[in-house]
Amino acid sequence: MSAKKRLVMKFGGKCLANENLIIKIANYLKQCLTKQPGLELVVVVSAMGDFTDKTLEQIQKLAPRLYHTDEKSLINREIDYATQSGEGISAAFLAIALNGIGVKARSLNAFQLRIQTTGDYQSAQIKDIDLNRLEKEFACYQVLVVTGFQGIHKADDAFVTLGRGGSDTTAVALAARLKCKCEFYKASAGITAFEPKYSDSAKVLSFITYADAKDLSQYGYEFLQPRCLDIAQRFSVPLEFKASPGLGNDPWAPGTVIGESLEQIEDTSYNFSALASKEDLALITLTQVKNLPGWSEKIFEVFKIVNLLDFQQIMTGPTAIINLIMTDKAYHKIHSNENDLITQIKDLDHAIEICERKGLICLTFIDSRMADDPGIGYLIAQALCLVGTNIEGQYSSGNKIHTFIAGAAGKAILSLANMFNLIQLP
Amino acid sequence: MSAKKRLVMKFGGKCLANENLIIKIANYLKQCLTKQPGLELVVVVSAMGDFTDKTLEQIQKLAPRLYHTDEKSLINREIDYATQSGEGISAAFLAIALNGIGVKARSLNAFQLRIQTTGDYQSAQIKDIDLNRLEKEFACYQVLVVTGFQGIHKADDAFVTLGRGGSDTTAVALAARLKCKCEFYKASAGITAFEPKYSDSAKVLSFITYADAKDLSQYGYEFLQPRCLDIAQRFSVPLEFKASPGLGNDPWAPGTVIGESLEQIEDTSYNFSALASKEDLALITLTQVKNLPGWSEKIFEVFKIVNLLDFQQIMTGPTAIINLIMTDKAYHKIHSNENDLITQIKDLDHAIEICERKGLICLTFIDSRMADDPGIGYLIAQALCLVGTNIEGQYSSGNKIHTFIAGAAGKAILSLANMFNLIQLP
Repeated sequence: MSAKKRLVMKFGGKCLANENLIIKIANYLKQCLTKQPGLELVVVVSAMGDFTDKTLEQIQKLAPRLYHTDEKSLINREIDYATQSGEGISAAFLAIALNGIGVKARSLNAFQLRIQTTGDYQSAQIKDIDLNRLEKEFACYQVLVVTGFQGIHKADDAFVTLGRGGSDTTAVALAARLKCKCEFYKASAGITAFEPKYSDSAKVLSFITYADAKDLSQYGYEFLQPRCLDIAQRFSVPLEFKASPGLGNDPWAPGTVIGESLEQIEDTSYNFSALASKEDLALITLTQVKNLPGWSEKIFEVFKIVNLLDFQQIMTGPTAIINLIMTDKAYHKIHSNENDLITQIKDLDHAIEICERKGLICLTFIDSRMADDPGIGYLIAQALCLVGTNIEGQYSSGNKIHTFIAGAAGKAILSLANMFNLIQLP
Repeated sequence: MSAKKRLVMKFGGKCLANENLIIKIANYLKQCLTKQPGLELVVVVSAMGDFTDKTLEQIQKLAPRLYHTDEKSLINREIDYATQSGEGISAAFLAIALNGIGVKARSLNAFQLRIQTTGDYQSAQIKDIDLNRLEKEFACYQVLVVTGFQGIHKADDAFVTLGRGGSDTTAVALAARLKCKCEFYKASAGITAFEPKYSDSAKVLSFITYADAKDLSQYGYEFLQPRCLDIAQRFSVPLEFKASPGLGNDPWAPGTVIGESLEQIEDTSYNFSALASKEDLALITLTQVKNLPGWSEKIFEVFKIVNLLDFQQIMTGPTAIINLIMTDKAYHKIHSNENDLITQIKDLDHAIEICERKGLICLTFIDSRMADDPGIGYLIAQALCLVGTNIEGQYSSGNKIHTFIAGAAGKAILSLANMFNLIQLP
């Protein structure tokens, strides 16, 4: 008798957008069970298509004044109760489609699985999941379809939601508890070396580490929330991103595995290169800043009301240059009328020169060879020059080079993708 | 300090069909609370518009083969989990709209209210409701919005539904437990003396007894399921049917009260007249049946596989006439090829003559004066003759006269309505 194998699969809203796609997923799951007898599947689902967005739009119409103020907290509980319904409908529908083709399946929601969370509506965190129910149901069912996104706040017996991307968290948390792999099904064939919106032919990565995945996510290419990557890393849950049935790519092709270390894959070398991009950024550069003890403190004192993404402070003899990187939103806060921080800096010392740019894009190139290859910065500059893109700012840290450009990112990304072989070979 | 007054209100799917109607209901509830300080409201809601029907259509697409066979039982649990979502969304939405205009409101579902039911998916019966939660919530909220239709089957922690019209049952059951009145809000201004689809000017009844309401319902004018009327009668819950805000009628006008006895209303006399109609009926009349002991038994033995709605057996000397009333569906079962009951009757005695008619309409006129006024049957015949409608069969029982006609019911009903003053005076 072969040991039972457990697997968590997660299907997103686009994969479940209509009844036909749900039936395609059901058929795929049936084939998975046929290929691996004894396999026990936990399938975590999001709400169908744009259910969640639509519901939030309706809620804004019902209480427009509340929704856009702090008083929104009055209705947070009801918002969560309404929005979590979508995952319930998806779970019931997939269980129905599975039974319709002879696969024993049952839906389970957060109440039935005792998914205990904090009471933070719209951003609850999972405290614990009781696996007893899952174990019991596996005696009768091959597929347990679990509602993502939902949690239970015990004090009130109320449904809470885990926030945007919360269904992913449900899936990783279940895989962590079941000590098994978690597969994410999306429209794309896996995680590509740069965002597929820039080119259909972006290379599908076979493996990346949790750390590199978090870097990509942090610098703007967010295929999975950092909280999910944290859980996966802490509990050593191998993740795989694969193509969902019915959306154009082959669900049977290998996808992208995210794991702890090279030991988890067959490849003997880990040559990871990928590109992330983040839009709507601003740079404020101060020059002629006094290079004296206490002056840094004065400058950062002024800016402490805004979140800085990164900064550089470069001493050039008697003066220093300070480069501040922030979102456009933070930039506008700096210039808010009642509190113009630039004027305050000028008041500190009129000698300081200030250069401000907004609406920039930061391209982050991540490459595992960075430490050994000093020529990568040159290649980036070359790739951008080839398409006439000016560099508005650039810095590196560890295995990453961040390059700021103005205008559209597309041609710059494609030129970098060609330079670093991030394009899928035919 | 005035004693707290409790009231259960029920809003149907049409009343909640969109965000604007929900906001109108919220405003109406706010005005009710202003007019009656200290009032505590339990508002029971159905799913918005055609949510339930649409969801059932989707489910049929997901598992078409199962859905139309006995195997449907495999997915009953999932059907209930998907369909009950609609009431949850409505409840959250109404609570949001109420909070949006400053009314403290909270949604409560079957889990939170411990609405324990039997485990019969799609037709569960309420066993008990724990009022502790309601009492606790009334300390903080003026309006508790309760999801209708839902129950909890404890063995599985699963949502079950109470079947068609189940939200009405939730409302009456809560009113029974809270020992208070239950108001039903609909598009019409109350219960009319005949179905409003036949005329806009049908008279709104001010009061009817549970018994008359059940008669109307039984004979085809079903404004409330008999199970709800049973609960209301058993626990002496006064019911009132009123116009829902935003649908054309005035919610502040008095509606129709359904109660136990005349003592519950101000009117000193109860002159109740109303008309119900039921379509798709068949009559089978047997003549020349032997009027001998044992022959009735033989005849009914043959027909016992079909449900008869009513029958008459009239002895005319040596022979008898038997009139059988059934639905068209039962009529077709009688003629099903493998088991033609008419042939079996002929085989009993070839002397029996059989007259069959299908596609008939039964008009049931209910009048509290029936016992004292022998001329009512004559007036019915006169009203039908006036519009050239032939009587295909007729019988009376207690305060009811049932008249079978062929063709469309409209003109016959309007003629009867005029004859018996069932039309609203301007």
